[in-house]
Amino acid sequence: MRFFIIGDIVGRPARNLLKNILKNMIDKNEIDFVIANGENASGGNGLTYKNYQELISCGIDIITMGNHVWDKKEIFEYIDEENKIIRPANYPEPCLGKGYTIINKNNINIGIINLSGRVFLSSLDCPFKTFEKIYNTLKKETNIIILDFHAEATAEKIAMGWFVDGKVSLMYGTHTHVQTADEKILPKGTGYITDVGMTGPYYSVLGVNKDIILKKFITQQPVRHELAKGPVQLNGLIVDIDEKSGKSIYIERYLKIFEN
Amino acid sequence: MRFFIIGDIVGRPARNLLKNILKNMIDKNEIDFVIANGENASGGNGLTYKNYQELISCGIDIITMGNHVWDKKEIFEYIDEENKIIRPANYPEPCLGKGYTIINKNNINIGIINLSGRVFLSSLDCPFKTFEKIYNTLKKETNIIILDFHAEATAEKIAMGWFVDGKVSLMYGTHTHVQTADEKILPKGTGYITDVGMTGPYYSVLGVNKDIILKKFITQQPVRHELAKGPVQLNGLIVDIDEKSGKSIYIERYLKIFEN
Amino acid sequence: MRFFIIGDIVGRPARNLLKNILKNMIDKNEIDFVIANGENASGGNGLTYKNYQELISCGIDIITMGNHVWDKKEIFEYIDEENKIIRPANYPEPCLGKGYTIINKNNINIGIINLSGRVFLSSLDCPFKTFEKIYNTLKKETNIIILDFHAEATAEKIAMGWFVDGKVSLMYGTHTHVQTADEKILPKGTGYITDVGMTGPYYSVLGVNKDIILKKFITQQPVRHELAKGPVQLNGLIVDIDEKSGKSIYIERYLKIFEN
Amino acid sequence: MRFFIIGDIVGRPARNLLKNILKNMIDKNEIDFVIANGENASGGNGLTYKNYQELISCGIDIITMGNHVWDKKEIFEYIDEENKIIRPANYPEPCLGKGYTIINKNNINIGIINLSGRVFLSSLDCPFKTFEKIYNTLKKETNIIILDFHAEATAEKIAMGWFVDGKVSLMYGTHTHVQTADEKILPKGTGYITDVGMTGPYYSVLGVNKDIILKKFITQQPVRHELAKGPVQLNGLIVDIDEKSGKSIYIERYLKIFEN
Ligand SMILES: [Fe+2]
Ligand SMILES: [Fe+2]
Ligand SMILES: [Fe+2]
Ligand SMILES: [Fe+2]
Ligand SMILES: [Fe+2]
Ligand SMILES: [Fe+2]
Ligand SMILES: [Fe+2]
Ligand SMILES: [Fe+2]
Repeated sequence: MRFFIIGDIVGRPARNLLKNILKNMIDKNEIDFVIANGENASGGNGLTYKNYQELISCGIDIITMGNHVWDKKEIFEYIDEENKIIRPANYPEPCLGKGYTIINKNNINIGIINLSGRVFLSSLDCPFKTFEKIYNTLKKETNIIILDFHAEATAEKIAMGWFVDGKVSLMYGTHTHVQTADEKILPKGTGYITDVGMTGPYYSVLGVNKDIILKKFITQQPVRHELAKGPVQLNGLIVDIDEKSGKSIYIERYLKIFEN
Repeated sequence: MRFFIIGDIVGRPARNLLKNILKNMIDKNEIDFVIANGENASGGNGLTYKNYQELISCGIDIITMGNHVWDKKEIFEYIDEENKIIRPANYPEPCLGKGYTIINKNNINIGIINLSGRVFLSSLDCPFKTFEKIYNTLKKETNIIILDFHAEATAEKIAMGWFVDGKVSLMYGTHTHVQTADEKILPKGTGYITDVGMTGPYYSVLGVNKDIILKKFITQQPVRHELAKGPVQLNGLIVDIDEKSGKSIYIERYLKIFEN
Repeated sequence: MRFFIIGDIVGRPARNLLKNILKNMIDKNEIDFVIANGENASGGNGLTYKNYQELISCGIDIITMGNHVWDKKEIFEYIDEENKIIRPANYPEPCLGKGYTIINKNNINIGIINLSGRVFLSSLDCPFKTFEKIYNTLKKETNIIILDFHAEATAEKIAMGWFVDGKVSLMYGTHTHVQTADEKILPKGTGYITDVGMTGPYYSVLGVNKDIILKKFITQQPVRHELAKGPVQLNGLIVDIDEKSGKSIYIERYLKIFEN
Repeated sequence: MRFFIIGDIVGRPARNLLKNILKNMIDKNEIDFVIANGENASGGNGLTYKNYQELISCGIDIITMGNHVWDKKEIFEYIDEENKIIRPANYPEPCLGKGYTIINKNNINIGIINLSGRVFLSSLDCPFKTFEKIYNTLKKETNIIILDFHAEATAEKIAMGWFVDGKVSLMYGTHTHVQTADEKILPKGTGYITDVGMTGPYYSVLGVNKDIILKKFITQQPVRHELAKGPVQLNGLIVDIDEKSGKSIYIERYLKIFEN
């Protein structure tokens, strides 16, 4: 079964790109299941209901989130109702929304988990312990489990990779908006990459206008973020998972720049 | 002119690897100049004088450092005397050692700058302003300038890339120990990659034994780092710089795993 | 000469209190000069022009700021024109506004400096080095110099106290919104306190409604701050400075709660 | 029943002071129970077994700890055996040592809890939720409960104060090494202070030689800490708790400087 993972979708430029090309790409590459990180899909911060629906109608099967999950306040109203979006599972309970889910596609159960790191980020519950609890539930339902670990520090992400090796089919990182070149299949069969990267304006700093970010670093004063214009990059990951064993058998980075 | 950049060298396993293979590799790839980050070369933290000499005798032309520069106290005794090592230039003055240097090789002047980011790191002087001062000096001497920007946050590194585009021949990031897949030549001719990655134990967390790091994350207690055993990866970058224009004309990530 | 220092003014409750009582208090206590930290005076974040004028008309001689200085965007329009407001002097140059000033009152020159710490805060210029530069200028004009060091970490504030002992008449800390009990005159004559505290709602967390802040800590989700209601505390410091020597000769914490 | 709380004990100077004066002070002030924070008692970092015994023999009934709890490795060998020491209860389980205890003195059960904040500190378990669990156990055994909340940020400490008001007899903060002036009895009867301060060298930065710390701030390079010499301050808190109701009825800061 072939999975396509899409890195943090940043704003309208990225949404428009996906509207234009995703369905075609799914067909051409014979992709069975699409997971995308949507924490920056609405103007760079959060996800409105309208944009959620838009992304799903592009062909995305499930949206994962990250530290920006609550940035658009209306998410508090729809996240509990909708079943194609999950947020980091290690937000303390009680918390609106779900941290993992199972989606049945082509008669196959696929478990998806979203977790957040804590280094340089909020003090959520331990992602390692939260994983163990969820894993013990999910493994009874399916042996295809995919984890989006949304985290900053490479050490925390790599450590999680070793922690879940042999338990999940694939663990990939999100959040830094830069794709890493360390995609691999770990010794016990788990596909792994530290970060899948970003889908958004190419000539930018993480999607944002570069002059604005440079001003912020140089003046140390707050600035109003504006997304950059121009070409849009699509960062992702193509992974083939063996349905029987639940192991990754093929992993390939995807990185393409589209003229606007 | 062909440059080979080596990502953070971690401990004895990486030093031994370089001893065994670097000279051969230089020959085979017709490399003219080698720059390596040595902040973790001695047991994972800092650089002793003996290890400094060892690395230089492997064929490295200049060693750059990072936040671990002062970890081995003996560096205070030799860093001022030696001319094949630089430390982040934005340590506040006065400070032992140099933050940039010019090395003449094959009758060509090559400027090398080392800077440290500040996001999630120490409050050094502004790396952007420090760059400008050094650049104004160096550009009178050479149009081949290479910058190792040792930083954690992708935003800070990418912003620096845009800041130096057209001014330096190459800016590469170090510190996260994970190679990124965003190598490119920026519009004005500067070669760029967010992080070149690490040279050290492959089955590890940033070079360190993975069980130790997992214990640290799960217990939140301090642990004693020990380097991992087994195969060693060499992460680097091959860059061709046009001597006349000082622009990068070719950039290629290097990533190889060696059995021990 | 008697100085009254007012800790971070939080929102309308604190502004109203000062309108009602400050002039009277100045008379009763024979205060010659009033300095107040205004970084939270407008709704808890920043300072509008209207509120700036309001505070000045209450009898405040000079307003200092802190990390919230730029929170109300209109400050960019008036801070350069007005001369009764200073912002942390260690914002990188160029920067709107001034980081220090001299005010002549009763025929006496009084130098006031505002600096920000860097531990757990933004990477501004070094506050110690910035102090030295300003001090070398100011000491030619007056021997009465007062420093508001707006910082989080006690170590950084105490270190600054030692650094300026004998150079300034008084160094006091702001930012933590909790008054410390370590007021003293340092060996070389500088009055000192780690933090003067906050002027704002008493039954609160730093001025903000306590239930909102508790929700933030427990859920780790973003919340919308609302100021607390009820009694208002006035935190301050009364200091007598000898005009001839510029040394502090008396220091007393001020802490009073007013029913609303 | 009268309690004496002692702020973070820093090194030999503080240990010696307590050896010389504590028993006498207990007698003179008719103190029934002494709690001291010992995280810095051995050379400024951690607590050796010998120093643990020393402190207990001075008249301290129970020692609480903080982020430095594991700094002296031998603690792993004795903390599980000894019953007069507790460490932050929100270290993830399993963890050596206890996070709370009950001590019976004069036929009265006294519950003591130690928790650590997370802002600017390690990602331990939620201190608020951990408190609730412990409280539900302890309240069955006693209505005298005292909480040492070892934390950096004033917001987190004040929020905890509101959270435990009416549940514990007393909550006091430790860690910043500076005594705050906000001691009070909260509306539902809980004694409160944001920080009790430090017991250690007076002319210092948090107990450490001031020149060393200034060097660290100015150079941004690592330094070797050495404790300061000279007079030693004792920072503490005297609190009277009504045995029947478990409420605080009197609270007084203690702050005295002793010539060496
Ligand atoms: Fe993102
Ligand atoms: Fe994120
Ligand atoms: Fe490194
Ligand atoms: Fe580093
Ligand atoms: Fe404030
Ligand atoms: Fe502040
Ligand atoms: Fe301490
Ligand atoms: Fe501490």
